[in-house]
Amino acid sequence: MKPYQEMNREELIAEKEIVCRQIEQKRSLHLQLDMSRGKPGKEQLALSMDMLSDLQSVEDCFDDNTDARNYGCLTGLPSAKALFADILDTTPDHIFVGGNASLQLMYDLIAKAYTHGLLHSPSPWSRRSTVRFLCPAPGYDRHFRVSETFGMEMIPVAMTPDGPDMDVVEQWVKDPNVLGMWCCPKYSNPDGIIYSEETVRRIAALHPAAPDFTVIWDNAYCIHEFDGDYVPFPDILSLCEKAGNPDMVYEFASTSKITFPGAGISCMATSKDNLAYLTKLIGAQIISYDKLNQIRHVRFLKDKANTLALMKQHASLLKPRFDAVLDALDKEIKPLSIANWTKPKGGYFISLFAMPGTAKQTLSLAKELGVTMTNAGATYPYGQDPFDSNIRIAPSVPSLDELKEAVSVLCLCLRFTALEQYLKTVQ
Amino acid sequence: MKPYQEMNREELIAEKEIVCRQIEQKRSLHLQLDMSRGKPGKEQLALSMDMLSDLQSVEDCFDDNTDARNYGCLTGLPSAKALFADILDTTPDHIFVGGNASLQLMYDLIAKAYTHGLLHSPSPWSRRSTVRFLCPAPGYDRHFRVSETFGMEMIPVAMTPDGPDMDVVEQWVKDPNVLGMWCCPKYSNPDGIIYSEETVRRIAALHPAAPDFTVIWDNAYCIHEFDGDYVPFPDILSLCEKAGNPDMVYEFASTSKITFPGAGISCMATSKDNLAYLTKLIGAQIISYDKLNQIRHVRFLKDKANTLALMKQHASLLKPRFDAVLDALDKEIKPLSIANWTKPKGGYFISLFAMPGTAKQTLSLAKELGVTMTNAGATYPYGQDPFDSNIRIAPSVPSLDELKEAVSVLCLCLRFTALEQYLKTVQ
Repeated sequence: MKPYQEMNREELIAEKEIVCRQIEQKRSLHLQLDMSRGKPGKEQLALSMDMLSDLQSVEDCFDDNTDARNYGCLTGLPSAKALFADILDTTPDHIFVGGNASLQLMYDLIAKAYTHGLLHSPSPWSRRSTVRFLCPAPGYDRHFRVSETFGMEMIPVAMTPDGPDMDVVEQWVKDPNVLGMWCCPKYSNPDGIIYSEETVRRIAALHPAAPDFTVIWDNAYCIHEFDGDYVPFPDILSLCEKAGNPDMVYEFASTSKITFPGAGISCMATSKDNLAYLTKLIGAQIISYDKLNQIRHVRFLKDKANTLALMKQHASLLKPRFDAVLDALDKEIKPLSIANWTKPKGGYFISLFAMPGTAKQTLSLAKELGVTMTNAGATYPYGQDPFDSNIRIAPSVPSLDELKEAVSVLCLCLRFTALEQYLKTVQ
Repeated sequence: MKPYQEMNREELIAEKEIVCRQIEQKRSLHLQLDMSRGKPGKEQLALSMDMLSDLQSVEDCFDDNTDARNYGCLTGLPSAKALFADILDTTPDHIFVGGNASLQLMYDLIAKAYTHGLLHSPSPWSRRSTVRFLCPAPGYDRHFRVSETFGMEMIPVAMTPDGPDMDVVEQWVKDPNVLGMWCCPKYSNPDGIIYSEETVRRIAALHPAAPDFTVIWDNAYCIHEFDGDYVPFPDILSLCEKAGNPDMVYEFASTSKITFPGAGISCMATSKDNLAYLTKLIGAQIISYDKLNQIRHVRFLKDKANTLALMKQHASLLKPRFDAVLDALDKEIKPLSIANWTKPKGGYFISLFAMPGTAKQTLSLAKELGVTMTNAGATYPYGQDPFDSNIRIAPSVPSLDELKEAVSVLCLCLRFTALEQYLKTVQ
């Protein structure tokens, strides 16, 4: 095999015939495979089944003197705060424990910024004519969807191997209408990038024009290494505090990819002043999140060390899946020089950059062949990838055999669309 | 004993001396009793402990083909929708299943009205200069707090034995700035009133000027009889539909007072068009609420008939407590003609009307003596009882012995403040 760019027209046509035959073979298999979402697979879910029998007696339902079955304890059980503080390297007095979805806590934070304003907001965001939000891209589609539903103007910021392009970020925050920034700082969705210490430091030290500039620090993959040991990561809260920005950052995490995605617990970590301000507002919304599920998690996960041991078990299920995708890409696509991709050591995604102008067609063809993947463009604000290039691969759900089949389909689709692209230009 | 209004000054002074001596005796007991919130007591919580061991195997976690442990199924598990539909006498396609708090679903509905507008809103409520909301009072303090946090103008509507004064409601809804109404239609908080069929029919047939007029139908006590059998209640959804107002009403219920207040499940029931509109918005907020807790509840509660049997067990714990309060009031206060009170057959409260101008002082004195009750005024918009008269008694938490002690303190406080009031005027 040689790179497509070195092939002449006849070679490209011959190659396309081969690829088309193989595509028709795949079509005849009537596959139904899903690599669309970063969901734990069923073997991963099995790892936490013991948690469901955690609580049996009345005593089991008590956290010190708090009866977790009853009302009260708005900010969360002390033991659940301690668990999240341990995992995030902060202290329990910075923690608010939520329900089964950190996305809900993030959405609610933005919603309250709109309806009430945040601690340093001169007015609720709903009263502003313009709200701009920085969106490192490619990024998490659900972050962008929150921005979109509130009618924010999303400003894409390019990702570098060290995280968002901070030169661009530092320029933009001078605009008083730029009110915040989405960050997925460790094993970023979808690139799997760990923000460098320098990037983290520069974010903490930003001088935004807006007094209520809000960094959403979605630490979704804080302990989610699947290749190698846990990688320590700076505590953004104390860095912001040291930089004179104590109230600028809201960190989020959850057990969605530690225990059960549909039935985990979540947290928000932020300054004590932010917590005091928000707790008062949240007090009108809910009496407390589900504390029995908090106590269930505390008994099962115990502490960071024990949770990291569980993550090693997740890793042993995830690594072969990532390897299967990466091996196939290395073998089938790399020699053709028609795409490049990230090789993350944690998180849930491989981010692939196909030839510009081919991502949509590639994924639409894959879908025809029974392989569902995240929509092209989803990793960009407004679902619009300016290069129509990025493809997010989520290898966690399929079995290894299914995965090999799915990647083989993806590779054929990448080859087909690249060939069409070359054939348009090569005489 | 004779009514205080028939006593002359000397008799009143003599009575006050007796009451003061008894108060000092109570003070010396250093009581610590809480009748402030409508919380199930610990014997009630014990009734649902088996639910915690519901889920053991992987198969237990499946609802048909849906793995409740994983992401997905935004509107709730089919079986959980069926359970709530059965309880509320509607159909599953009207149901959205939420987390552990129906208050959160109500708050979020109002929040979305403000940030996005509801199905028939000409614009988001945040863009309006005036938002008025009808507040039948006395009512539920947490309803009023939601209105207050969004800066609504709350319009008190008097409660009658048949529910809110509908003549007043029908007048107010002609105002295009009146955008909704709080209702707790069965065993209303705090009066324990069941809205009459006529009241329910008139609510369903309202002709509001605002196209997005919103009836919050908080059916918190839909199956919560503690005295006698289950009382059937009209389905507001179909009544609204028949009256040509299909999208006007949002009904809420939860298992907070069926299983565990801190770890139940909740639901919103509304028209299919409202559901379709809201589900799209909620999709930006959460992937799904905790479906394992939904399945746990479905396995434990099964259906309405089985749930009603559980409610009979709750009733057997609640009725003696309500009786203890009512007996004491009948014995110690009724002969004095200084207060009247409701005698509900369901719900969590007794609503007592003390002599106008004495509620605050009565509760402040009770607190001094170690008996905590809901703050005076809490049952009115802005916490302001125009008559300073209403006292909400929540008898569910204390043991029978504690309760007798607490009511005895309350009676002394009622007598003391009434005596002071009479002594101001009687020569």
